[in-house]
Amino acid sequence: MLDCIVIGSGVAGISAALTLQANQKTCMIIGNAHLSDKITKAERIHNYPGLTDITGAEFTQKLQEQLKRAGISITEQKATGVYPMQGKLGVATQEGGYFEAKTVILAGGVETVKQIDGETQFTGRGVSYCATCDGFLYKDKNIFVLCTSKRLESEIEHLAGYAKTVYAFLLYKDVGELPQNVVFVKKMPKKIIGDKRVTGIEFVGESLQIDGVFVLKESASPTSLLQELDVRDGHIVVDRNMQTNVQGVFAAGDCTGRPYQYAKAVGEGNVAAHSVSRYLYENK
Amino acid sequence: MLDCIVIGSGVAGISAALTLQANQKTCMIIGNAHLSDKITKAERIHNYPGLTDITGAEFTQKLQEQLKRAGISITEQKATGVYPMQGKLGVATQEGGYFEAKTVILAGGVETVKQIDGETQFTGRGVSYCATCDGFLYKDKNIFVLCTSKRLESEIEHLAGYAKTVYAFLLYKDVGELPQNVVFVKKMPKKIIGDKRVTGIEFVGESLQIDGVFVLKESASPTSLLQELDVRDGHIVVDRNMQTNVQGVFAAGDCTGRPYQYAKAVGEGNVAAHSVSRYLYENK
Repeated sequence: MLDCIVIGSGVAGISAALTLQANQKTCMIIGNAHLSDKITKAERIHNYPGLTDITGAEFTQKLQEQLKRAGISITEQKATGVYPMQGKLGVATQEGGYFEAKTVILAGGVETVKQIDGETQFTGRGVSYCATCDGFLYKDKNIFVLCTSKRLESEIEHLAGYAKTVYAFLLYKDVGELPQNVVFVKKMPKKIIGDKRVTGIEFVGESLQIDGVFVLKESASPTSLLQELDVRDGHIVVDRNMQTNVQGVFAAGDCTGRPYQYAKAVGEGNVAAHSVSRYLYENK
Repeated sequence: MLDCIVIGSGVAGISAALTLQANQKTCMIIGNAHLSDKITKAERIHNYPGLTDITGAEFTQKLQEQLKRAGISITEQKATGVYPMQGKLGVATQEGGYFEAKTVILAGGVETVKQIDGETQFTGRGVSYCATCDGFLYKDKNIFVLCTSKRLESEIEHLAGYAKTVYAFLLYKDVGELPQNVVFVKKMPKKIIGDKRVTGIEFVGESLQIDGVFVLKESASPTSLLQELDVRDGHIVVDRNMQTNVQGVFAAGDCTGRPYQYAKAVGEGNVAAHSVSRYLYENK
C-alpha cells in the first residue's frame, strides 16, 4: 500500500511530494498534468525566494522539470471522496478510480466562486484574486475591486497604494477609513469587458474604463471530499504540523487559509510531508 | 519609524523581507551579508520547489541577487536584545546599534551546539545536522550518527535506508527497534578526522573509518533576545499566523521548530510578513 496520496498538484502538493520522496516514502499525486491554473496564470511572481520576478508559466515549467527529474508523475483524475478506514484511507475519483494509502495530504487549493460575467475569461489578463501578488502591476492605473469581507479590507488599502483610482464595490458593513483615491461604487458589476486584456466594467446603465479587476473573497466552498473534516470559514483547520482532525489526513496550501501565496503553500507542503513521515513511524 | 525589523538573514528572514516590501511596508534586516552559513554550506538542496538540485552556494547567490534587485540591504550587526515599549519595539545590537520599529520578526534560526572536535571544521564536508537534507548523499556508505533525542529516532531509520552501516551513539533511553544495519556505539566520540572531507571518527583508544557524521539534536539554546518570549523545547511558540506571545513580535523559520527545511522557513517568513501587515492595519 502507498504511504501517501497527495490530492492536488499546485505548489503545496508538489512540495509535499518532493519531500515525501526525499524521506523515502511512496506517494502518488492526484491532480492536473498542467499543475495548477492559478500558478500558470500568475502574471508575475516577485516574492518567492530564489526565483526573481518570474512569470507563472516559467514557474510551472520549472516545477514540471523538477517533478520529471525526481521521477514523480501525476495521476490525472479528480478526487471526489476520501474514506477513512481501519488504519488506511481510500480515495475515489470522478473517473471511477479508487486508491488506498496510509495517509492523505489535502492540497487542492480553494475554489474561487467566479460570478462576474467575463471573470474567467480575463483571469490573468487583468482579473486577479490577490492584491499582494498583483497590486504592483497597476501603478497609477485605474482598477475595480469587489470585496466581500471586512477581513480583506487591508488589501484595498494595499491596492490604493499603487493605483490612481480604486473603484470599490464592497459587500460588507462597517467599512473602515480608506485612502482618498478609493471611490465607492454602489452598483453590482455586470460584465467585465476587454479585448486582449481588461479595458472596462459594465453596470446596469453605465460603464467604467479600468485596467484591472480584483475579486477579493474569503474562500468560497469548504472541501466536500471528506465529511467529518473540521472546516472553518471555508478553510480546513490544521495545527502547526498540518494535521487535520481526521487521523492520517493532513492538509497544506490555500485550502488551509490565507495568505494565498506560493511560499506559504510550499512551506506547508513540506511540513505536511514531514508529519506524514513521523505519523508512519509512530503507527507502523 | 520602521514598520518592521527582521532579525536574521536566512531564508525565513529573506522571505519575510521580500513580502513586506511587496506589501509596501518599510523594514530592515539585521543579519549577515553572506546570509546564512547553514544555506551556504548545504551540499545540495533537492526538495525546494522551483530550484532543482542546487547547491547551497548557488541558492545563496540567487537570494543575494533577488535582494539586490528588490533594493533590500542587510544591516550587518548582531541583535542582542528586543525591548517591548508602548506601541513599538526597540532592538539593540552587539555593535552598539539601536533601532525601533512597530513590529519585529524573529528569524534567527537555531543554534546547534557544536561539541565534537572537528565538527565545525567539517560542516558541509561530511558533517550534517539534517538527515532528510543530506541522507541521500551516503548511499552504501558508512556513517556515524550522534542522536540526543528519542524524538529524532526516525531520522536514524531514514539514514539506515541509504547507508551501508550506521554507527549510532545515542544519548537517550528507550531506544526503539532500528534496522539491522544500525550498529550501536557505546563510547563518546572524541574527534572527527579527515582531510578535504570526513574520513573517520576517533574514540578513546580506537577509531572508525566513516564517510559522514550526522549530529541530530533538538534545538540547543532558546532565544535570549527577549526574556518574556514563550519558548518550549528550545523553540519559540507561535500560532498559525506566526504570532508569538509578545504583542507585535512574530517569528519564522528554524527558531519556531522542526522540520529545519528551506521550504518551511520560506513559508513561515511569508506568513509572518502578512501577519505584520494585518497587525499594522489593525493597530494604526
